[in-house]
Amino acid sequence: MALRGSFIRLFKKQFNSVFKLHNCSHSVAIIGAPFSKGQKRRGVEHGPQAIRDAGLLDRLSTMDYPLHDYGDLNFTHLAKDECFMHVPFPRTVGLANKMLASAVGSAVEAGHTCITLGGDHSLAIGSVQGHYKHCPDLCLIWVDAHADINTPLTSPSGNLHGQSVSFLLKELQDKMPEVPGFSWLKPFLSTSDLVYIGLRDVDPGEHYILKNCGIQYFTMRDIDRMGIQRVTEMSLDHLLSRKQKPIHLSFDIDAFDPSLAPATGTPVNGGLTYREGIYLAEEINNTGLLSAMDLVEVNPTLGATREAVEATASLAVDVIAASLGKTREGAHISFDKLPSPGTTYKADNEQKICL
Amino acid sequence: MALRGSFIRLFKKQFNSVFKLHNCSHSVAIIGAPFSKGQKRRGVEHGPQAIRDAGLLDRLSTMDYPLHDYGDLNFTHLAKDECFMHVPFPRTVGLANKMLASAVGSAVEAGHTCITLGGDHSLAIGSVQGHYKHCPDLCLIWVDAHADINTPLTSPSGNLHGQSVSFLLKELQDKMPEVPGFSWLKPFLSTSDLVYIGLRDVDPGEHYILKNCGIQYFTMRDIDRMGIQRVTEMSLDHLLSRKQKPIHLSFDIDAFDPSLAPATGTPVNGGLTYREGIYLAEEINNTGLLSAMDLVEVNPTLGATREAVEATASLAVDVIAASLGKTREGAHISFDKLPSPGTTYKADNEQKICL
Amino acid sequence: MALRGSFIRLFKKQFNSVFKLHNCSHSVAIIGAPFSKGQKRRGVEHGPQAIRDAGLLDRLSTMDYPLHDYGDLNFTHLAKDECFMHVPFPRTVGLANKMLASAVGSAVEAGHTCITLGGDHSLAIGSVQGHYKHCPDLCLIWVDAHADINTPLTSPSGNLHGQSVSFLLKELQDKMPEVPGFSWLKPFLSTSDLVYIGLRDVDPGEHYILKNCGIQYFTMRDIDRMGIQRVTEMSLDHLLSRKQKPIHLSFDIDAFDPSLAPATGTPVNGGLTYREGIYLAEEINNTGLLSAMDLVEVNPTLGATREAVEATASLAVDVIAASLGKTREGAHISFDKLPSPGTTYKADNEQKICL
Repeated sequence: MALRGSFIRLFKKQFNSVFKLHNCSHSVAIIGAPFSKGQKRRGVEHGPQAIRDAGLLDRLSTMDYPLHDYGDLNFTHLAKDECFMHVPFPRTVGLANKMLASAVGSAVEAGHTCITLGGDHSLAIGSVQGHYKHCPDLCLIWVDAHADINTPLTSPSGNLHGQSVSFLLKELQDKMPEVPGFSWLKPFLSTSDLVYIGLRDVDPGEHYILKNCGIQYFTMRDIDRMGIQRVTEMSLDHLLSRKQKPIHLSFDIDAFDPSLAPATGTPVNGGLTYREGIYLAEEINNTGLLSAMDLVEVNPTLGATREAVEATASLAVDVIAASLGKTREGAHISFDKLPSPGTTYKADNEQKICL
Repeated sequence: MALRGSFIRLFKKQFNSVFKLHNCSHSVAIIGAPFSKGQKRRGVEHGPQAIRDAGLLDRLSTMDYPLHDYGDLNFTHLAKDECFMHVPFPRTVGLANKMLASAVGSAVEAGHTCITLGGDHSLAIGSVQGHYKHCPDLCLIWVDAHADINTPLTSPSGNLHGQSVSFLLKELQDKMPEVPGFSWLKPFLSTSDLVYIGLRDVDPGEHYILKNCGIQYFTMRDIDRMGIQRVTEMSLDHLLSRKQKPIHLSFDIDAFDPSLAPATGTPVNGGLTYREGIYLAEEINNTGLLSAMDLVEVNPTLGATREAVEATASLAVDVIAASLGKTREGAHISFDKLPSPGTTYKADNEQKICL
Repeated sequence: MALRGSFIRLFKKQFNSVFKLHNCSHSVAIIGAPFSKGQKRRGVEHGPQAIRDAGLLDRLSTMDYPLHDYGDLNFTHLAKDECFMHVPFPRTVGLANKMLASAVGSAVEAGHTCITLGGDHSLAIGSVQGHYKHCPDLCLIWVDAHADINTPLTSPSGNLHGQSVSFLLKELQDKMPEVPGFSWLKPFLSTSDLVYIGLRDVDPGEHYILKNCGIQYFTMRDIDRMGIQRVTEMSLDHLLSRKQKPIHLSFDIDAFDPSLAPATGTPVNGGLTYREGIYLAEEINNTGLLSAMDLVEVNPTLGATREAVEATASLAVDVIAASLGKTREGAHISFDKLPSPGTTYKADNEQKICL
C-alpha cells in the first residue's frame, strides 16, 4: 500500500501539473436543484438560494475560470403520487432526477465542471446518472454522516434521500424493487468505484450492504483513528490507483459537525471539523479530476437563528470553492515578479495602488 | 513497545470475538447516586435525573442486552459531621460510599455491567471498592481533567471529590490520615493498575504523587502530541498486556471541553473533543472487559442555559452508550441476509415496512 | 531530517535542564502597546487593557519569577500624517514603533523576557527591532492567519499591520520604498531565521514572496496534514538546529479559530484549536529560548458580546502563560516530599491546611 501510495502520489503530481494548465481553461457550471421530496421535511428546497445568498458566485468569480450559472431547475410536483410501499413521492422524485440528469449531462458535455446545489440528497441519483452519461468511467466520493444506501426494503423511514446510492449500484440491482418513476434509470456504478467518508449513523440494512458488498467506507471512527490525511489518501488511492477517473463528489453538508452546519435535516454529533472538510476538498481538487459535484441538504428553515443558517450556507460555499481550487496557501497568478520601488509598476485587478 | 502493542492487539482481537458472544448475554445495571457532599457546590446531586432525562434508558434499550434500573440510592446526610482538618462532610461522604459500594458490589455479583450515575467524583471511592469486592483483579481508567489524587494533607480545597484515588491506592496508605467515616475502607489498588487520561489541571501535591509513584498518566498535552488513538492503545496495553482484567471506567464529564460539557463544577479549557471521548469509549468497549463504569459531575444547576444542561447530559448518555457497545459504524444484527423484491420479507422490530 | 530531528531533541533536552535552572532566576517584563494606526479600525488600542483585565498579572504571579509591569506606552498620534501611496498613518506608525523598539530594547537589556501586549500587528516592527538590538542573533516565529509580508507596492489594503515583516527582512530591502517615519529602521533579519505557523489567508504578493524568498511557512493545511506536533518540531528544527538562538514569538490572536478568538479585526475560519495554540506555546517554552513575545490584535470593541471579548482576552492570557512555562501537566516545586500523617507538616503558601 505504501508503495502504491507513493506511486499514485508521484503520478498525481505529474498529472496535476499537466491538468492544472488545462484546468486554467476549465469552466464551471452551477445548477440549482430546489427539491425536497426525497424526504418529509420542507425547507431544503430553499438550499440553492441560501448558498447563492452566502456569496457563491462572488467567491467563484475571483478564481480564474469562466462561470456559467444555469439558474434553478423548475421541478414538477405530481399531484397524484401515492406511496410505493412506505416510500413517499416516488414518481415526483423520479421525474425530478430525470430532469436533473439531463441538465447535468448537458453541462458536463459542454465541458464544464458541474456543481449541483441541493435540495435533498435524493438528487444525487440524477446528478450522478447525468454525469455518467458523458463520463462512463466516473468514480463517486460520497461525503455524508449517512450512507444513503438503504433499499426500499430495508429503509426504516422510506425516504428516498436515504436510498440514493442503492439506485446507482449494479451490485444491488436484484435487491431493488421497481420503484414507480425510475423506469428511465438502469444501475451503472460498481461498488469498487465508490468511497464513503464521514459515516456515523448507519442503519442495519445499510451496514449489511456496506459489509457484504465490498464497499470502501470510512466512518468518523476511522478518521479519529487514522486522521483525515490518511483517510483521504486511502480513498483516492482506492478509486484512482488503477486508472485516473473523473470524480463525482457528492457532499452532504451534514458530514460536518452540527456545531458548524446546524441548518440541516438530519444532523448527527461528532462530524467533520471545518478544517477536515476543507482539507478533503483541497485534496480532491489537487487530483485535477473533479468533474461534477453535489452540495446538498442545506435547509435554511431549520437553523435556530439567522446566524446558524448563514454559517451553514457559508460553509457550503467554502467547500465548493476549495473543491474548485481555492487554497489556504494562496496563489500568485497575478505576480510574475515582485514590484520594486522606482519602477512604474502597474497595478492589476487585484490591487488598488496609489502610485 | 511496538511488538508488545501488536501482540496485545492480536490478543484483543481473538479475545473480542469470544467475548462478544458472551457480551450478547451480558446485562447492564444502572445505579443513580444523587450525592454532592464531596465538594461544596450543590446541584450535582441532580446529575442522575438529568442523565435519565436525556434519554439514557431509551438509548440503552435499543441495544441487545437486558437492562436493570436500580433507581437512585437514598443517601443519609449526617447532621453532626464537622470538618476533619479542612475536609468537609467526611462522615457523610464515607457513609454514602459505603452504601454505594454495597449496591455496586451486588450488581456486579449478579453479573451486570454496573453503571453508576453521579453525583460528584468522591463516589468513585465506593463504586470502585464495591466493584473490587467481586473483581479483585480490576484495573481503573480515570478519565478526568483532574487527577483527584490529593491526600487530605495536600489538598488545596479539602474537597473529597479531589481525593478519591488516594483512598484506593495501596502505595499511598502511609500518607493518608484516618479520615472519620472511612474506617470500613482498606486501600486495595496498585498504582500499576491505574491509568489517567485527559489531565490538564493538576495540583502540586498531585503532581508529586503522579511523578513519584510511577503512575501512568496522559495529559491533554500527551493527546495533542500522540493523538487519542495512540494514547488509548498505550493505556490499554499498560493495563492489560500482562493479564486481561475487568475494567472500571471512572469518567468525569469535565474531561470533555467546557464548550461540550458546560454544566459541571470545575470546567477547564482545552478538554477532549466529542470524537476523542467517543473513540476512547468505543475502544474500551472493544476490549470486551468493561465491568463497571461511573459517569460523574454532571451538574444541571450550573449550565447557563437549558441547552447547555441538555448538551452536557446528552453527552453523558453518548459516552455511556459507546462504552456499552453503541458504534458509529452501526451493526446489522437484525439482518442475516438482504431482502429481495418478491420475497415475503418480514419486517423485524427495527423496521416498519408497508409490504 | 529524522536524524537531525533526533539530535536537536537530544540537544534541547540537555540545554533545557541547564536553562530551566537559569530560567528560575529569569524575570518577565510586560509592556502595553495601545496602538491601532497600523490598520483602519479603531478599538485594538484597548487590547492591552482587555488582556490585563482578563487576569494576566495574577496568572503570571503564580509562577516563580519576578514580574515587571512597565505599564502602557503613550504613543504620539501625529496630526499631519498624510498617506504614503495608499498606506495610511506612515509617520505615526513609524514613530510608535521607534518608541516601542526603545522600550523593548531596555527590557531585554535588563535581562527580562519581554512581553508586548498589542495593539495591532504593525507593532512587531518595533518590538522585533528593539529585541534585535540586544540579541542580534534572534529568530522569529510568526503565528498568524496572515503573513503580514506585503510591501507597500503589493498590499491590497495599504494597512501597515499587513506589512510588518517586509520591514524586517534583509532580502526584501530593494523591494521596499522609503516609507516616511521609518528612516530609523534598517532591515536586519534573514529569511532563514523566520518561520510562519497558522497561515490561511495569503495575498498574491505575499504568496510570491513566501515562495520565492525561501521562507519556511506552515499553513493550516500543513497542520491538517502533519499535525501540530510535527509542524512545531519542524519549525524549531529549522530555526535552532544549527545554533540555539533567542526566540522572538510574535503571536497574532487571529491565528486561533474565530470561534475561540472572535474579538479581532480580521478573523479567518479554520484556525488553530485551543489545544494546538497551547501546545505550540508549551513547546516554545520548552526550548528555554523564548526571549521576547508579542500578543497582538485583541480588539475588545469587535466582540459581539461581553463573553466573546472575555474569551478572546482570556485566550491571550493562556497563550502568554503557556509560553512562559505554565504547563497542563502541573508542577510540584513546593513539594520536596509528600506529607505524612503525624508529622507536623507546615503548609506553604499554596495550601491552607487546618492542622
